[in-house]
Amino acid sequence: MAAELTAPELIAKHRPTLDQALEAIRTRAYWSPHPEHPKAYGEDGSLDAAAGKAAFDALLGNRLDLTDQPGVDDWVGEEVSPYGIELGVTYPHADLDVLLPAMRAGQRGWRDAGAELRAMVCLEILKRISDRTHQFAHAVMHTSGQAFMMAFQAGGPHAQDRGLEAVAYAYAEQVRTPGTAEWTKPQGKRDPLALAKTFTPVPRGIGLVIGCNTFPTWNGYPGLFASLATGNAVLVKPHPRAVLPLALTVRIARDVLAESGFDANLVALAAERPGEGIAKTLALRPEIKIIDYTGSTAFGDWLEANARQAQVYTEKAGVNTVIVHSTDDYQGMLSNLAFSLSLYSGQMCTTPQNLLIPRDGISTDQGPRTFDEVTADLARAVDGLLGDDARANALLGAIVNPDVKARLEAAAGLGEVALASREVTNPEFPDAVVRTPVIVKLDGAKPDDEAAYMSECFGPVSFAVAVDSVTDAAELLRRTVREKGAMTVGAYTTDAGVEETIQEVCLEESAQLSLNLTGGVYVNQTAAFSDFHGSGGNPAANAALTDGAFVANRFRVVEVRREA
Amino acid sequence: MAAELTAPELIAKHRPTLDQALEAIRTRAYWSPHPEHPKAYGEDGSLDAAAGKAAFDALLGNRLDLTDQPGVDDWVGEEVSPYGIELGVTYPHADLDVLLPAMRAGQRGWRDAGAELRAMVCLEILKRISDRTHQFAHAVMHTSGQAFMMAFQAGGPHAQDRGLEAVAYAYAEQVRTPGTAEWTKPQGKRDPLALAKTFTPVPRGIGLVIGCNTFPTWNGYPGLFASLATGNAVLVKPHPRAVLPLALTVRIARDVLAESGFDANLVALAAERPGEGIAKTLALRPEIKIIDYTGSTAFGDWLEANARQAQVYTEKAGVNTVIVHSTDDYQGMLSNLAFSLSLYSGQMCTTPQNLLIPRDGISTDQGPRTFDEVTADLARAVDGLLGDDARANALLGAIVNPDVKARLEAAAGLGEVALASREVTNPEFPDAVVRTPVIVKLDGAKPDDEAAYMSECFGPVSFAVAVDSVTDAAELLRRTVREKGAMTVGAYTTDAGVEETIQEVCLEESAQLSLNLTGGVYVNQTAAFSDFHGSGGNPAANAALTDGAFVANRFRVVEVRREA
Repeated sequence: MAAELTAPELIAKHRPTLDQALEAIRTRAYWSPHPEHPKAYGEDGSLDAAAGKAAFDALLGNRLDLTDQPGVDDWVGEEVSPYGIELGVTYPHADLDVLLPAMRAGQRGWRDAGAELRAMVCLEILKRISDRTHQFAHAVMHTSGQAFMMAFQAGGPHAQDRGLEAVAYAYAEQVRTPGTAEWTKPQGKRDPLALAKTFTPVPRGIGLVIGCNTFPTWNGYPGLFASLATGNAVLVKPHPRAVLPLALTVRIARDVLAESGFDANLVALAAERPGEGIAKTLALRPEIKIIDYTGSTAFGDWLEANARQAQVYTEKAGVNTVIVHSTDDYQGMLSNLAFSLSLYSGQMCTTPQNLLIPRDGISTDQGPRTFDEVTADLARAVDGLLGDDARANALLGAIVNPDVKARLEAAAGLGEVALASREVTNPEFPDAVVRTPVIVKLDGAKPDDEAAYMSECFGPVSFAVAVDSVTDAAELLRRTVREKGAMTVGAYTTDAGVEETIQEVCLEESAQLSLNLTGGVYVNQTAAFSDFHGSGGNPAANAALTDGAFVANRFRVVEVRREA
Repeated sequence: MAAELTAPELIAKHRPTLDQALEAIRTRAYWSPHPEHPKAYGEDGSLDAAAGKAAFDALLGNRLDLTDQPGVDDWVGEEVSPYGIELGVTYPHADLDVLLPAMRAGQRGWRDAGAELRAMVCLEILKRISDRTHQFAHAVMHTSGQAFMMAFQAGGPHAQDRGLEAVAYAYAEQVRTPGTAEWTKPQGKRDPLALAKTFTPVPRGIGLVIGCNTFPTWNGYPGLFASLATGNAVLVKPHPRAVLPLALTVRIARDVLAESGFDANLVALAAERPGEGIAKTLALRPEIKIIDYTGSTAFGDWLEANARQAQVYTEKAGVNTVIVHSTDDYQGMLSNLAFSLSLYSGQMCTTPQNLLIPRDGISTDQGPRTFDEVTADLARAVDGLLGDDARANALLGAIVNPDVKARLEAAAGLGEVALASREVTNPEFPDAVVRTPVIVKLDGAKPDDEAAYMSECFGPVSFAVAVDSVTDAAELLRRTVREKGAMTVGAYTTDAGVEETIQEVCLEESAQLSLNLTGGVYVNQTAAFSDFHGSGGNPAANAALTDGAFVANRFRVVEVRREA
């Protein structure tokens, strides 16, 4: 079958975007080719809001067919939106002994395509995903529980950015070694030794992407595109509660691969029956050579210890800290923190959990504030931010699953409640579980409180922890990052020495630090092409999104040399 | 203490060399700043042959003091040269609970020096080592058993090249991310969001280099310099029979670090008592975050499974294959193979072991040759190459240890001997154990023979394995690489289809292939800056020397961002 999308067409269409991405990861200045505004879509073949919603609605209650994916032995799927509606979508269930061998059949052609053409095909996949951003937004919203606007942006353009960033790193890494070299070594008066060499990036095998419930695309795309762009086939195993966004992704990838003349089975879906737990089975299959995982520490640690045949990239749990020492913009600080605690009901791996505040209080542009005043002011700031139900719904989204709700309810018993969680009604989705964050006061000097603040309490739960001094805060930060890991650290201080102390802890413990954020950038948000997501150097994650280490070991370079 | 070597001086002296190295790893053309010829040394502060020999002799029977290395609790060392002389050198034995904390003390200063200055200090270390190449040549000769000229070249300039290559990759990897970035995101009619960001490469901790007996410097330098250049401290644990070359290296590194204003304890030596086995203890210490190991598969696998707190880079055992199918230069092929089998008595991880030859014979420019004729002709070629004892000694060196000798002696019982090993007398070192290679005929179709050719028989032992066809040879090659690993693969064929088949096996199984070598380049030799040593994609090694993957995970990048 002749390719419908030829290599020259793909290169003409996408090479400029790749070049801009390559420039962006070098300068780390702001850049994105994916519009954030919903109204930017609707022309040049992209779906506008109405068409995207209609495309999403058309999926509900139906089989999501992945044309020709081999080894289908059942149809599975029981997704229920955190907003209360049953999606009713079913997906092909795979006989792995049929599917995995089929995924290897196209690997030679994909390898021989070379790094540039692979990047172009990946960019075409991302472009088609981008065109359907409105459809994806609903799919992410109704699996993660994110509010629509967040699902649109984080699940759409920001996720696509992270995918493109991975393609750029993968391409750059593969072309560091030239395709050919002439090697001529002088031998004094004798003839030189001369060799002709070829260098070929070769894939490791099949990459397995194990998706998460809260950010199926944002956390799934880096591994998917890093593995695919380096020549591997990719099997996507979504979280059982968030299959739809990744199934749509797989369908688009298969279409583009086939239209470009490659084997569609280079990307496939592994949906599972309830309780089937196929991640464990898949992770130990000899065909699986790369694993990308986002989720619990327990399973991440298990993967690292047991999936020894694979390169394993994990993002696990962590405990994020903000040290509050002093500020010259108290209101800005409170607003910024209130937003960070509220966004998506704190269901982000980057949401601050422990707010370390000196028990003697802090200095601000509005005069000194005691520990109790700071916590009360923060509680008021959250209340103010979420006082209007429509705005609260737009920020909070829905509680993603009953475990989060149970943790939230239990948190109030851990200490004195500075801010109680309240229920918010969502008129559009009355069955949605919507809750505002709880803030609980703990004492860093009380051993009884340590169990609470030294464990990840994923969800809209934060602890205002009283510490004896900022030195104690820095030491508690160090211990927290070292023992529990952290995706983010924040700090507020106007004191250069304190800033230096906190920065040194972050450098020594490998944690990403945001200082004195009071405006429209939040500690829990990172931007592709500029910010690293995680460091890969503390227990929260063994890799960063995205850097050289994230891509360099997904392929190997095979050299063939002969006399020239 | 003011630094005796200032940063501007170091940069002026070494930056041009670094730039050339960076260019070389991009083009992979021939390049080396380290002369191969012994007569090139003796000017500009380097030791000539006599001075190098005298400097080596001065070490014998004495303590090798590492000024101020902390925690010395004993003096140890029982090295006996494979050439029969007792070195009598003793080395400081370390109390790890004193030494390891001391090694961390200087890490902040080393981190803050930045990637460029670290590279410059590494290049100064390499320059001082280069100046003492003649001394190192004797140290390598009398620990590895390599003949002088090989010890000089492989243990001197070639090892220094590999160290410099690692520095170049480490530098390039660290500067992929800029030190600072301004990030400005448009917000429509509102003010843009603006952040100032800093990015700092931070070390993982202490790197442990576990040296080997046969190539203490060549296999030790890549990991040592890759870890040091990325900001880590490095603890060198030499093989108990090959301490001297690495102890000299550590002494020079400590001198240069101190003279450059850094803590000498950033590089330290861990010598051990006989049978102490400190590698296992060290590998599990929490301070050790990186391990570079060359040696047995059993211990390499143990490290990978157990040293979970560390990034582990291993080069283990493998079974190297040469497929002999056809040639248009029969004599060149025989000469080339004879040299490869003889060099350093086959005690290289890259020496061919299994020569797969169709039982129906091969076609050559001198007409067809049967299996028996090829093996007999190869035996004659080896005999001719080693017929003169002086030349034999210069090529073979000495058997490095009794295990190799025992394997050599047992090999003759594995099948029909095509070439018997013989003893060679070394008039200069009468106690040296010098042996020519043995070639044993095996049958690829006999299950009884499989145990022999499917195991690594490290030393001067090769198997001429009769196979039914070149297709069978390719399949046996595939199985060997997949199950046992391979550092090198060679092939001789004039048939484009056969070449394609063998090349495809190597691409699929990640093995480095040398085709039709008949001149002065040998399958068991690789050149830094151009050839990869191993692929990191088959069981013989989990890393290649040197590529991006070898350096990218030795450090992490910590970002600090603040509002601009």
